[in-house]
Amino acid sequence: MKELGYYNGKIGELNEMTVPMNDRASWFGDGVYEAGLCRNYKVFAMDEHVDRLFRSASMLEITVPASKEELKALLNDLIHKMDTGDLLVYYQVTRGSGPRAHAFPDGPANLWVTLRPKAINPDTTPVSLITAEDTRFFHCNIKTLNLIPSVMANERAKRAGCYECVLYRPGRRVTECSHSNVHIIKDGVFYTAPTDNLILPGIARAHLIKACKKLQIPVSETPFTVEDLLAADEIITSSSTAPCIRACRVDGQPVGMKREDLFNALHEAVFQEFYDETAD
Amino acid sequence: MKELGYYNGKIGELNEMTVPMNDRASWFGDGVYEAGLCRNYKVFAMDEHVDRLFRSASMLEITVPASKEELKALLNDLIHKMDTGDLLVYYQVTRGSGPRAHAFPDGPANLWVTLRPKAINPDTTPVSLITAEDTRFFHCNIKTLNLIPSVMANERAKRAGCYECVLYRPGRRVTECSHSNVHIIKDGVFYTAPTDNLILPGIARAHLIKACKKLQIPVSETPFTVEDLLAADEIITSSSTAPCIRACRVDGQPVGMKREDLFNALHEAVFQEFYDETAD
Repeated sequence: MKELGYYNGKIGELNEMTVPMNDRASWFGDGVYEAGLCRNYKVFAMDEHVDRLFRSASMLEITVPASKEELKALLNDLIHKMDTGDLLVYYQVTRGSGPRAHAFPDGPANLWVTLRPKAINPDTTPVSLITAEDTRFFHCNIKTLNLIPSVMANERAKRAGCYECVLYRPGRRVTECSHSNVHIIKDGVFYTAPTDNLILPGIARAHLIKACKKLQIPVSETPFTVEDLLAADEIITSSSTAPCIRACRVDGQPVGMKREDLFNALHEAVFQEFYDETAD
Repeated sequence: MKELGYYNGKIGELNEMTVPMNDRASWFGDGVYEAGLCRNYKVFAMDEHVDRLFRSASMLEITVPASKEELKALLNDLIHKMDTGDLLVYYQVTRGSGPRAHAFPDGPANLWVTLRPKAINPDTTPVSLITAEDTRFFHCNIKTLNLIPSVMANERAKRAGCYECVLYRPGRRVTECSHSNVHIIKDGVFYTAPTDNLILPGIARAHLIKACKKLQIPVSETPFTVEDLLAADEIITSSSTAPCIRACRVDGQPVGMKREDLFNALHEAVFQEFYDETAD
């Protein structure tokens, strides 16, 4: 198949797939999701993603309608229906179905999967960023479908010709971007926001930290500000689909680009791990 | 029909209706909605609801795929397909369809409607409330589908055997409830939170204010705290489906219930307006 959609056992071409109007995604965005890359029909970091899906679901008292092993087996089964093994593997669980009512429904949760061709891009061309106030809720550690502020922030970046929008809370504390975590290198130390309720505990972030440890780059999980960002030696964003991106501009000002050695070492380390784990 | 679902021109029984998996409601909860009551096939306060839908959509740069007049004509047409004229009229607009990507899609927005039997309840039995921290985003003035924190707060109230959950921000400033606005009467004055980005500008709230003016009850649109709530002479919640509800307990403590005269006068005024506007 070219692009696959799966919903509670039903499978079809994604753009032809339908779901019940009464799924609670429709009324409340009431669900949690994961997205990660697959190469050579091997899903990268699948255990970590599935573990996080179950943690997200648990924090919202959603019962995933499969065991972790069953979900992994399903994903592995579905990817083998695809024309290519280089894919974006996306899955979500929504809190069941029923006529719109805030109260939790009685029935089981719904399991959705989409698979679309996607290859990782090892390009190291630096990108531009913008900044904006972080007006999201206080559950950013849960990977939910309530994503309107992220959609708006991303659109703002896109219209400014930029790759991402760096969000900051009161005190100009940097949290993360619209669909990436963000980190800085200063005086040889890798700083990244602590994993509280203001950021998603990114799996690419965890792999970057692992690469830092391998490379003996000290890691500090400490909040940093927009001013720290502007004064950083390097600014790096990470997400599961773009695990190590370097920024050269923030709000039009030149930034970072002072420790190409460390950036290159980190980039190489995370890509090498990805290629090793998904080798044919 | 018993329960109607409408999606971009397609009509069916709600529980049999499907929507494209790729509607952005599925991935981002990327849409805005309205809900109001209909009696005797007359939709109450339809102009106000439709105006607010357009305002919500505009704040998110969603183009409603119909004019206000077309939307009202559609709603009027659909309600006449129903077995009863006492209905909950729900409608939403989502930001188009497409494979999951944060960036706005090129295509038009999608229009959804559901109609379900619902009669207004003039019962004046007082209810119990709980309180909880307001952990929502800072766009509560926009009536969006990003409703997970409201779903969780409502469930918390339900499990405590209560009607609603009163939310408060830092400084214990009361904002609103999980699906209602909340107001207090103290020393003869009706206090209600101002319509900033922390509350929905409720249409039932506006009609309560109108009733206060008619009854010569002074209105103060001033923030109040949880402590003000606990010390109030009356606590009233309002929503389009339950426009004037009186509370007798908050977090298990007896509250309010000191100005039955004012509560009864307000209750009668808002119900009278509803009955007058929807008379057969």
